[in-house]
Amino acid sequence: MAQPTPSQHARSTRRFADVDEPSAAVWDVVARVDAGELATAAALLHNLHPADQADALAALDRRERRRLLDRIDSHTLAELLPFLTPEELEHVAPDVALPQLTAALDQASAQLGADVLHAIPVGDAETVLDQLPKAGLVEPLLQHDDQSAGGIMAPELMVLGPHLAAEQALSLLRATAPAPTVQDTVYIVDSEGVLLGSIGLHALVFAPPMTALRDLMEPVGPTVMTDMDQEDALKILQRFGLHSLPVLDDDGRLVGVTTADDLLDIAQQEATEDMYRLVGLVDDEALTAPLATALRRRLPWLLLNLATAFAAAAVVAAFESTLARVAALAIFLPIIAGQGGNAGMQVTTLAVRAMALGEFDRHFTRLVLPREVVIGIASGIAFGLLVGAVGWVWQDNPWLGVAVGAAMLGTMIVAGLFGLLIPLVLRALGADPALAASIFVTTATDMLGFLFFLGLAALLIERIT
Amino acid sequence: MAQPTPSQHARSTRRFADVDEPSAAVWDVVARVDAGELATAAALLHNLHPADQADALAALDRRERRRLLDRIDSHTLAELLPFLTPEELEHVAPDVALPQLTAALDQASAQLGADVLHAIPVGDAETVLDQLPKAGLVEPLLQHDDQSAGGIMAPELMVLGPHLAAEQALSLLRATAPAPTVQDTVYIVDSEGVLLGSIGLHALVFAPPMTALRDLMEPVGPTVMTDMDQEDALKILQRFGLHSLPVLDDDGRLVGVTTADDLLDIAQQEATEDMYRLVGLVDDEALTAPLATALRRRLPWLLLNLATAFAAAAVVAAFESTLARVAALAIFLPIIAGQGGNAGMQVTTLAVRAMALGEFDRHFTRLVLPREVVIGIASGIAFGLLVGAVGWVWQDNPWLGVAVGAAMLGTMIVAGLFGLLIPLVLRALGADPALAASIFVTTATDMLGFLFFLGLAALLIERIT
Repeated sequence: MAQPTPSQHARSTRRFADVDEPSAAVWDVVARVDAGELATAAALLHNLHPADQADALAALDRRERRRLLDRIDSHTLAELLPFLTPEELEHVAPDVALPQLTAALDQASAQLGADVLHAIPVGDAETVLDQLPKAGLVEPLLQHDDQSAGGIMAPELMVLGPHLAAEQALSLLRATAPAPTVQDTVYIVDSEGVLLGSIGLHALVFAPPMTALRDLMEPVGPTVMTDMDQEDALKILQRFGLHSLPVLDDDGRLVGVTTADDLLDIAQQEATEDMYRLVGLVDDEALTAPLATALRRRLPWLLLNLATAFAAAAVVAAFESTLARVAALAIFLPIIAGQGGNAGMQVTTLAVRAMALGEFDRHFTRLVLPREVVIGIASGIAFGLLVGAVGWVWQDNPWLGVAVGAAMLGTMIVAGLFGLLIPLVLRALGADPALAASIFVTTATDMLGFLFFLGLAALLIERIT
Repeated sequence: MAQPTPSQHARSTRRFADVDEPSAAVWDVVARVDAGELATAAALLHNLHPADQADALAALDRRERRRLLDRIDSHTLAELLPFLTPEELEHVAPDVALPQLTAALDQASAQLGADVLHAIPVGDAETVLDQLPKAGLVEPLLQHDDQSAGGIMAPELMVLGPHLAAEQALSLLRATAPAPTVQDTVYIVDSEGVLLGSIGLHALVFAPPMTALRDLMEPVGPTVMTDMDQEDALKILQRFGLHSLPVLDDDGRLVGVTTADDLLDIAQQEATEDMYRLVGLVDDEALTAPLATALRRRLPWLLLNLATAFAAAAVVAAFESTLARVAALAIFLPIIAGQGGNAGMQVTTLAVRAMALGEFDRHFTRLVLPREVVIGIASGIAFGLLVGAVGWVWQDNPWLGVAVGAAMLGTMIVAGLFGLLIPLVLRALGADPALAASIFVTTATDMLGFLFFLGLAALLIERIT
């Protein structure tokens, strides 16, 4: 999401106790619109913080939102739009009249322009671009994947040549009107626009006035290319503890910058995606998505889950005659399945999160695989002995204890191995390592766990009956 | 974690393709130390980016790390320490000689000072504080919970009175030597230190020289109190799209600031915590934690999981006589359990993530609960019909199809309800809503699912046999 300008924070002086709840004033605006009191609603809205204004707009129905939008000036609109989530923006942006939207975007950052143009129909986006004075800043962002550094970068920067003296530099910056997105850094480029270094505004202001920028600047630190995935840009920013990261084109020219606050939103999105995908949910589902959308998105994965559950059931079916002789065997199926599934999901969760944070590969070959095998064996022995003893005492049969205990050991080892292998295989196939991993992991542990247990029980059937 | 100063980024000009791997130079340093070539290792280390230096130190064994530390100057140490993870810091910091550590912390931010003092024994921390010239900046941070805004804030700020003219203000700032943590904002306070407003350095530099700060400043926007939980501070920073958030004491005095890049680390930690807790993993386990630690942390949760699995097994045991008459019933247990558990975990994951992002409460009463019930019923009907039909055809018995189909419907409704209720109850009890939620949810769906299915089968037993 694009960043708001400082002036937007001016209207809220409240301190926060319950941060989950928007202010009551938001619901007041919504109630006034519902009651048809549009003039009052617009006046109330005008006094809110833009974040609250955005909440109010997002909470309205389409028809009522349109009525309220007619009463909002383009400056207010420009200030509140950055506070809509990408999902809300897709609902709200198409409701704004195109001339009003164009006027708002002219007062907003190029990042917001690109976000909004992604959210409205292509034909409308072209109309807005045709009319937009700052189209030249927005268009380059649209040419990049909206998940790449080039798609999320801010192009509004303080950029100067290396030969200027500090004093001249400040005069020049004073002459260039609008506030840049990164306000604490001046970038130094050569005549081709290739990045040579940077200098903090703080350092520039306090430097000897006649010193040339090339003598003041810091060399170029970590940079990213326009086509780098935003997740990788996030990893670099975090690895090097930066506030902002210059974005270069193929020729090394500075074309924009990504910042920690942009990437914070992305970090949250990516974490949400991983958590959702682990249990077979689609990325952008929220608890408030429309019912039909929610069903359409969840049912296919639950269907896949069902298909894999039938695979586990088929293993049980193969041993129906064994179960017919000793019905008590069925009692232990949920124990095998529950324990194996949970142990497997623990390993998968660790692996998926380590991959997302860029902490996976550097340790993997040396440490992780052998370690998970050892953990699987150790916890398998512990739980195998425990479950075996319980099985023996409960069913008063030592051989049943042996079967369930040995099966538990095997299942825990399988859980460690598959819990690690499934995200690895998904990633090697070019899929997200979290993609429905829970479904695949529990299927593996169910099938192999049942096979171990019922297979052993079948072998020992004369002693168990 | 504390922020590095800009000069630290100077040494790395590489562009990044594989961001998961530290540079080969890191392993080179480690190899030289292992080979006893300490002088070469120290020289190589000196040329690395501090992030890579930190990786090299973290990768060494304790004894070898101590030998290398002896050859590192305190300035280099001050630059690399911010790049250690909290876990790595706990291993590395106690290995540094106290005089060297004190000298390093004097050149580092107060945030880093607090992080390091948390990571070493209390007695050592007191010794360092006694010797540290900037102890006055570090001590206030130590008095707050290290998960609170007061514990993570940076106290190094540009702070001025309201009556100064812009020109005077710049001269004064020039006279105060060290670079502040937030370099783009000057905070305006009254004679008591109470925050009155702020002005961007960018705006200050380009303001008419004789204008008073009180006429230039923006009013106070969102702020947080020292004792606010860092997660809530993160939500506010995100909600209002800010780069930084002033931290006030009980009297409204400005005592520090938290920034987007600090909170980015926290956002990642919190997401990791939630993902881990959902499957019953303890917060700070990593794939590389020592084996004994990993076992000690995972076993208790797996033991809890086992206990709950026995509860589900007890339900099956209660129907042993039914299973003895129709062994084929056991085939359907994994289907009921697998489908109910996955559907429940989908809802729990949605709820936990919505709570973490502060998006839960405002929609809950109006939308979420009724919606999840409807989704449970709709998917329950769909899967009930499907599984019932398969059960009928597979086992050639319509009544078995009825039992399994109806049980599936009941299980899906239970999954939606418990998937939502369990995180709510955990939160109401003051626990983390994600705490081992998967274990509780799957236990509920297993037990009730088995009860529905085997109970119905027992009622229909004459028709099923």
